[in-house]
Amino acid sequence: MPLLKSWVASANDANHPFPLNNLPYGVFSTEGSDPRCGVAIGDMILDITAAEAEGLIALSDEPLFDMPFWNVLMEEGPAVWTAFRERLTALLAEGSTEQDKAEPLLVTAADADLHMPFAVSEYTDFYAGKQHAQNMGAILRGSPDLPANWLHIPIGYNGRASSVVVSGTPIHRPNGQTKAPDADMPSFGPSKRLDIELEMGAIVGTGSDLGQPITVDEADAMIFGYVLLNDWSARDIQGWEYQPLGPFQGKAFGTSISPWIVTAAALESFRAPTPARDKELLPYLNGSKDGLYDIELEVLMQPEGAETASVIAKTNYNRMYYSAAEQLCHHAIGGCEMNSGDLLGSGTISGPVREEYGSLMELSWAGREPFTLETGETRGFIEDGDTLTLRGNARGDGYTIGFGDCTGTILPAVNWPAE
Amino acid sequence: MPLLKSWVASANDANHPFPLNNLPYGVFSTEGSDPRCGVAIGDMILDITAAEAEGLIALSDEPLFDMPFWNVLMEEGPAVWTAFRERLTALLAEGSTEQDKAEPLLVTAADADLHMPFAVSEYTDFYAGKQHAQNMGAILRGSPDLPANWLHIPIGYNGRASSVVVSGTPIHRPNGQTKAPDADMPSFGPSKRLDIELEMGAIVGTGSDLGQPITVDEADAMIFGYVLLNDWSARDIQGWEYQPLGPFQGKAFGTSISPWIVTAAALESFRAPTPARDKELLPYLNGSKDGLYDIELEVLMQPEGAETASVIAKTNYNRMYYSAAEQLCHHAIGGCEMNSGDLLGSGTISGPVREEYGSLMELSWAGREPFTLETGETRGFIEDGDTLTLRGNARGDGYTIGFGDCTGTILPAVNWPAE
Repeated sequence: MPLLKSWVASANDANHPFPLNNLPYGVFSTEGSDPRCGVAIGDMILDITAAEAEGLIALSDEPLFDMPFWNVLMEEGPAVWTAFRERLTALLAEGSTEQDKAEPLLVTAADADLHMPFAVSEYTDFYAGKQHAQNMGAILRGSPDLPANWLHIPIGYNGRASSVVVSGTPIHRPNGQTKAPDADMPSFGPSKRLDIELEMGAIVGTGSDLGQPITVDEADAMIFGYVLLNDWSARDIQGWEYQPLGPFQGKAFGTSISPWIVTAAALESFRAPTPARDKELLPYLNGSKDGLYDIELEVLMQPEGAETASVIAKTNYNRMYYSAAEQLCHHAIGGCEMNSGDLLGSGTISGPVREEYGSLMELSWAGREPFTLETGETRGFIEDGDTLTLRGNARGDGYTIGFGDCTGTILPAVNWPAE
Repeated sequence: MPLLKSWVASANDANHPFPLNNLPYGVFSTEGSDPRCGVAIGDMILDITAAEAEGLIALSDEPLFDMPFWNVLMEEGPAVWTAFRERLTALLAEGSTEQDKAEPLLVTAADADLHMPFAVSEYTDFYAGKQHAQNMGAILRGSPDLPANWLHIPIGYNGRASSVVVSGTPIHRPNGQTKAPDADMPSFGPSKRLDIELEMGAIVGTGSDLGQPITVDEADAMIFGYVLLNDWSARDIQGWEYQPLGPFQGKAFGTSISPWIVTAAALESFRAPTPARDKELLPYLNGSKDGLYDIELEVLMQPEGAETASVIAKTNYNRMYYSAAEQLCHHAIGGCEMNSGDLLGSGTISGPVREEYGSLMELSWAGREPFTLETGETRGFIEDGDTLTLRGNARGDGYTIGFGDCTGTILPAVNWPAE
C-alpha cells in the first residue's frame, strides 16, 4: 500500500506518524473544553465527538462518541469498525467533497492535552519474549533455561487495570517490602531497583462468553488495536513478593500506555510471522494468520535537567515468540470471559543482542554493568527525575504508521507514613 | 447486642439468617420485572429501588438505587452507609410508624431470583490461611514449611473479575493444558482435578488514589461488607501453568459469591483478633482493630441425583492469619489505586484439623485419601453434576447473621474444539 494522500498537508510527509493510512484514535481536550474523541491526522486532530453531533458521522442510532472513551465503538464489532474507517478516509482524503465541512472540526494537536483513549476493563501482562525470559533466568537463577512450560503456554498473569495511565502521567517511585539476600528480616521503603518494560498492548474490541473458548483466528478478529505499553516494575519488591503466586505490588504502581490506539486495520500490511517453534504447540494455539507485526521500537532515557534523551534500546515487535491473538486465545481457553476494553501486555520485547534489550534489568544486567547515557551519566536502574519514553513506528512504502510517544517521569517516593 | 425485633415476623427467629440486625443488600427480580436493589428481612425482600422512587428513602439528590447494583451507595462512603442503615432500621423495626408504607414494598424471597449484588471492579485473591498454606506445601512440595515471605506479606495475586458470578450460576468444568509428571509433552482436555476454595470476599466501598498508600485503619473503614466466596480451582491446570507468574487459567473459569452483601456494620460485634504473630509484622501492617470476624463456615457437597447434601468441612473465618484490612492496606502500599467495587478473596480458610480444611485438595490430600459422602459415594475431586455449597453464620445473643448460600453445580466441559 502506498501513502494515501490527505488534504491535511502535514499528513503527507513520509515520516509523519499520522498519515491517512494510520488514523489512530485518542481522547483530547483543549483549554476550557471537556475531553472528547478525536482522530489524529498529520499535525491536527479531527474532533469526532463534534463530527458525530453535527451528523458528519452517522453509523448508529445511538451516539458512539458522546463519552470521552472509544469503548462504545469497540463494542460495535468489526463491521462498524470498518465502516467508520472508510468514512474517515472519505472525509479526509485528498479531493474529498466534504473538506469544507470537516475542516472546521480540526484542532491543532500541539494545543491539545491527551487522555486515556479507552476505559480499561481488565489488564493482563504476558511473558512472551524468549530472549527476555532467558535473560531473566540467567540474571535471577543463574541459568538461561526457560521454565518447563514456557514453550507450550503463553505465560501470563492478571495485572491491575486501575494503575494503567496515559503517557505523560508522572509515576511515584513505589514504597514496599524488600529483603536483601543476607538480611534476617524484610524492610520497608522506596524501591531501589526501578525499571521499565518495553511492551506492546493489544486492546480487546469484542468479547467472549464465560465458559466459551475461542480459536486463535477468532481472537485475532476480536483485537481492535494496539498501543505502546511500559509496565513499570520495582524489581526488588517483585523479587521478594512473587513466590509462589506471581507479581503483585512490584507491578501495580503504574503502567503507561501511548495515547493513540493504532487500529489492527492500520497495521494489517505489517503482519509478521511468529518464529519457528522450538516445540510444536498444542493444536488450539495454531492460527492461520501471521500474528506479530513489524514495528520498530526504541526506548529513550532523559535525566532531569538533561537537554537530550539518549536512545538506550532499539528492537522490533516481531521478536516475540507468541502473538497477541495466541495470548488472547489461551486467556479464554478455560472459559474465562474476555471483555471489550481488556488490555493485554505483550511481555517485554528484547532482541538477541544487548542493544535490543527492553528493560534496564537486562540492559545493565541487574545493575552489575551500568550503561552510559549521552550526557555521560551512567544508570543501572531509574533515578528520580528520569524520563523514560517508548517509541514505535511501522515503516511502509512512503509512509509511517506511528504510535506517538509513551512517556513518563519518575517522581520521588511519597513520604510514608507521613511524619 | 440482642435481637432487634421487626414487624416482619419471620425475621424474629433466633436462627433466621436475616433478622433486623443483619439487613443484607442484594439484587433481585420477580417474574416479569427487571432486577432491582433489595434488602433481606426475614423471609421477605424490601424493594429498595421502589422505596427510593416513592420517597420512602431519600439520602441524596441523585438516586442511589435506580440501577441493579449497590455500587452507587458504596461510593457514597461511611456517613451515607450509616444513615441508610439507620433509615432501614427505623422503617422495619417493631413499632415503626411507617409499616403501612413499607409493607406494600415487600416481596416474598422465595418468589425472587437473585443476581450479582454489585459490579466487580477488580478481583484479588489472597493466600492468608496458614494451615492452608502449610497443607499445600506438604502436598505439592513435600514440606509444610511456609514460603520465606509468607509471615511478612499477605500474599495475593490479581484474579479475573469477569469470571465472578452469583451463587446458583452453573460452572463448566474448564478445558486447559496439563502435563503429567512423567509425560514428555503437555496435553489438552477437561480438568481432572477440579476443586473449590472456601473463602470470604471483602468488598471495597470507597477507593484510594493512585500513588497514595493507606493505613490498616483507613483500609478497615473502606470495607463495605462481606460475601462468601468459592474460588473454583483446576489444580492440574494451575500446577502446570503457575510457575513463574502465578495462577491464571486454573482460576479464571468461575468464582462464585453469595448473593447478599452482609455489611461490615452488621458484623461489627463479631470482630475477632488475628492470631499471635510468628514473626513481627512491619509497622505499616499494624492496625488498631480486630480485623477478623467470628463467622462459622461450612461446605456441603451433593452429587447429581442425591437427595441430601453432605457437610464435608466446618471451620471459622477467625482461623485466618491476615485480615481483609491488612490485605487491603498491603494492596495499596506501593500506590496501587483501589476502587469501589474491588473484591478481595481472603484465601482458603482451613482450620487445624482435617474436618476444617477448606478445599478438596486438602480434604482428600490431593486425591490420595478420598473422603466419603453420606450417600456412600467417595470423592477426591469434583465430578460432573456435583453441587458445592458454602454457608456462613455469625451467632449472636438470640440472633444469627447469615450470608445465604453460595452454591454452584459443575457442568461437563464444553466440547472443544467443536467437531
